Amino acid sequence: MKKGRLEAFTDGVLAIIITIMVLELKVPHGGSFEDLIPLLPVFGSYVLSFIYLAIYWNNHHHMMQTVKHVTGSILWANMHLLFWLSIIPFATGWMGENHFTEASVFLYGVILLLAAIAYWILQRLILKTHGKESLLSKALGKDIKGKISPVLYVLGIIGVFYNIWFSGTIFILVAIMWLIPDRRIERILKSE
Amino acid sequence: MKKGRLEAFTDGVLAIIITIMVLELKVPHGGSFEDLIPLLPVFGSYVLSFIYLAIYWNNHHHMMQTVKHVTGSILWANMHLLFWLSIIPFATGWMGENHFTEASVFLYGVILLLAAIAYWILQRLILKTHGKESLLSKALGKDIKGKISPVLYVLGIIGVFYNIWFSGTIFILVAIMWLIPDRRIERILKSE
Amino acid sequence: MKKGRLEAFTDGVLAIIITIMVLELKVPHGGSFEDLIPLLPVFGSYVLSFIYLAIYWNNHHHMMQTVKHVTGSILWANMHLLFWLSIIPFATGWMGENHFTEASVFLYGVILLLAAIAYWILQRLILKTHGKESLLSKALGKDIKGKISPVLYVLGIIGVFYNIWFSGTIFILVAIMWLIPDRRIERILKSE
Amino acid sequence: MKKGRLEAFTDGVLAIIITIMVLELKVPHGGSFEDLIPLLPVFGSYVLSFIYLAIYWNNHHHMMQTVKHVTGSILWANMHLLFWLSIIPFATGWMGENHFTEASVFLYGVILLLAAIAYWILQRLILKTHGKESLLSKALGKDIKGKISPVLYVLGIIGVFYNIWFSGTIFILVAIMWLIPDRRIERILKSE
Repeated sequence: MKKGRLEAFTDGVLAIIITIMVLELKVPHGGSFEDLIPLLPVFGSYVLSFIYLAIYWNNHHHMMQTVKHVTGSILWANMHLLFWLSIIPFATGWMGENHFTEASVFLYGVILLLAAIAYWILQRLILKTHGKESLLSKALGKDIKGKISPVLYVLGIIGVFYNIWFSGTIFILVAIMWLIPDRRIERILKSE
Repeated sequence: MKKGRLEAFTDGVLAIIITIMVLELKVPHGGSFEDLIPLLPVFGSYVLSFIYLAIYWNNHHHMMQTVKHVTGSILWANMHLLFWLSIIPFATGWMGENHFTEASVFLYGVILLLAAIAYWILQRLILKTHGKESLLSKALGKDIKGKISPVLYVLGIIGVFYNIWFSGTIFILVAIMWLIPDRRIERILKSE
Repeated sequence: MKKGRLEAFTDGVLAIIITIMVLELKVPHGGSFEDLIPLLPVFGSYVLSFIYLAIYWNNHHHMMQTVKHVTGSILWANMHLLFWLSIIPFATGWMGENHFTEASVFLYGVILLLAAIAYWILQRLILKTHGKESLLSKALGKDIKGKISPVLYVLGIIGVFYNIWFSGTIFILVAIMWLIPDRRIERILKSE
Repeated sequence: MKKGRLEAFTDGVLAIIITIMVLELKVPHGGSFEDLIPLLPVFGSYVLSFIYLAIYWNNHHHMMQTVKHVTGSILWANMHLLFWLSIIPFATGWMGENHFTEASVFLYGVILLLAAIAYWILQRLILKTHGKESLLSKALGKDIKGKISPVLYVLGIIGVFYNIWFSGTIFILVAIMWLIPDRRIERILKSE
C-alpha cells in the first residue's frame, strides 16, 4: 500500500475540518461593530482550534515522511485520529457560542485528549512496523511534548470544575508548547 | 486516461462527505451536559456512517491499486458510487435527528444497499477490463464479504417493519465484518 | 507553470461543489416517509446537477490531458469556469425548493449557458496555445456536442416562458447527450 | 521537508474557502425574479472575494514554484496566511448581507490587509531562505504591486468613515490591478 493516497486523504479531511469551522462564525444580522462583540468568544475558540489542527497537520506531515509502508492497522489508526479531529469544529462551536461553560470546556478538553491518544496510537503502530532504528524513532527522541500533553489535557479537563480560565490557559499553553520549535522547548524542559 | 486524477477526485469527494456529516451535529443552544443528550442518536449515527465511509475509502483505495487503465465506463461507475455515498450525510442526519424512525432506518439501509450495488458494478467493470488473471481478481478470491453484505442490507431494510433495533444491529454488524481483517473473517466464515 | 497544481485545485473545487449541493437537501423535521415527499424536487435537481458537474469534471479531465503548458490566460479562464460552476449549488437549491418556478429554471439555464461559454473560452485558449495539430484539436474534431449544447441551453432558457417542462426536458437531454459515449452520438447525429 | 504536501494542503484549504463562500448565498424562499434582488449585494461581494482568492491562489502557486526547501517557519507563515484567508467568507457574507455598512466594509478591508501582510511575511521568509540570487527574488523585481496594495488597503479602510463607495472602489481596483498581467501594469506605473 502506498502512503501517497493516505496523505492526500488526510490532507483533504484536515483542510475541510479547518475550513468548515469558520461556518460556526455565523454572520450577525446587524451591520455595526457592536454586532461583532458577541462573536468574540466564537472567534477566540476558532483561533485556538485552527492552531491545534495546524499543529496536527504539521506533526502528521513530519511523521508520515518517516513512514515507508502503510499497513491496514496504520490506516485505521489514521482514520481513528481523523474521527476525533472531525469533532473539533463541533466542540469549538459549542464552547464559543455558550461562552465557555463548564460542560463545553470539559468536552473540548476531552476531544483534545482523545485526539492526542489517537495520535499516540498511530505513532506507536508506525514505530512498531518500522523498528527502533527507524527515522521516526530517532526523530521522536524522548518525545517529551507527546508525553506531557495528555497529562496537561487531563489537568485541564479536571480543572474545569474549579476554574474554567485555568483549563483554558492550559489548553492555550499546550498549543504554544507545540508551536515553539522543538530544540528550544526541549532545552527549557531539560533545564527544569 | 490516468487513474491518478480519478483517485484524487474520489479522495476529495470522500473527504468532504465524511467531514460534512459533522455539520448535522448542530451546536446546541444550551451549554450544559444535558444539552448534549438529545445529540446522542445523531452522534451514534455519525460514528456508524464515518466507519462505513472509511471502509469504502479503504476498499476503493485497495481496488484502485490493481487498476491499470481507466475506461469511460469505469469513470462513470465511480461517479455513480460517489453519488450514493454523497447521500449518506443526509440519510445519517435524518436517522439521527428523528431518533431512528422506521422510515429513516429504511432509507439508510436502502442507501447502503445502493452504494454496495454501485461498488459491485465498479468492481465488475474493473474485473472485465483487467481479466480473470488480474491482481484484483486474485485479491478478491470468492469475495464472501461482498456477496454477504447486500443480503444483510436487504434483511436490515425489510427488518425495519418488524423491529428497528434488529435492522440497526445488522447495519452495525456489516460494518464490523468489514473492519475485521480479511483472513480472520474468512476463516470464521469457512469454519461455519 | 505546471498543470499538476491547476488540476489539483480544479479537482478540489469540483469535489466540493458536487458534495456541498447535498447540504441543500435539508433534513426534514418529521421522520415518516411522507416527510420525504416535499424533498423530491430538490432531490431531482440534485441528481441533474450532480450529472452536469460529473460531465464537466470528466471533460475537463480529458481536455487537460492534452495540455502541455499552462499560461496565465488559461489559468484565469479555468477560474472563470469554476466561478460559474460554483453557482450551480445555489441555482439547484433554488430551483428544487421552489418546485421549478419560471424564474428558477431560467436562472438554472443561464448558469448552465455561462458555464458552457466559460468552458468554450478555456478550450479556445488551449487550442490557440497548442496549435491546430495538437492532440486536443484532433480529439475535438468538429465538436458537435460543444456546438449544439449552447443552442439547446438558449432554447431551454427562452422556453421557460412557454412551458417549464419543455425547458426541463431540454436540460435533461443535454446531460444525456454528454453521457452517451462520443462515437455513438456522432454516428446518430451524422445519420440525421 | 517536501513542498508537495504543503501545496496540496494549501490547495485544499483555498478550494474549500472559495467554494464555501457560496453557502452565504442563501436560497431565497420565494421563487420569482424579485426574490433574487436582495441577494445582489451578497452576489457582488461573492464575485469580489472569489477574484481575491483566485489571485492569492495564482500568486501562491507562482511563488511556491521558486521554493526549493520548506522550513518550519515557512510552513507556519503559510498557515498564518490561510488563517486570514479563511475569514474572508465570513467578512464577505457580513458585508453582503448588511448591504455594505461602514463596519462591514471596514472589517473586509482589515482582513484583506492582514492577508496581504501574511503573504508578505511568507514571501520574506522564502526570500530569506533562498537568497537574493534566487528565482523568486528575480521574479519579484521591485514588487510594485506588493508594495502598493497594503497602502491602498489602508486608504480603503480609513476611507470607510468618509464614503463607503470610495473604499469599495479601492478594493475593486486592487483586484483589477492584480488581474492585469504584470508587464502591462508595470509599464503603466513606470510611465507615471
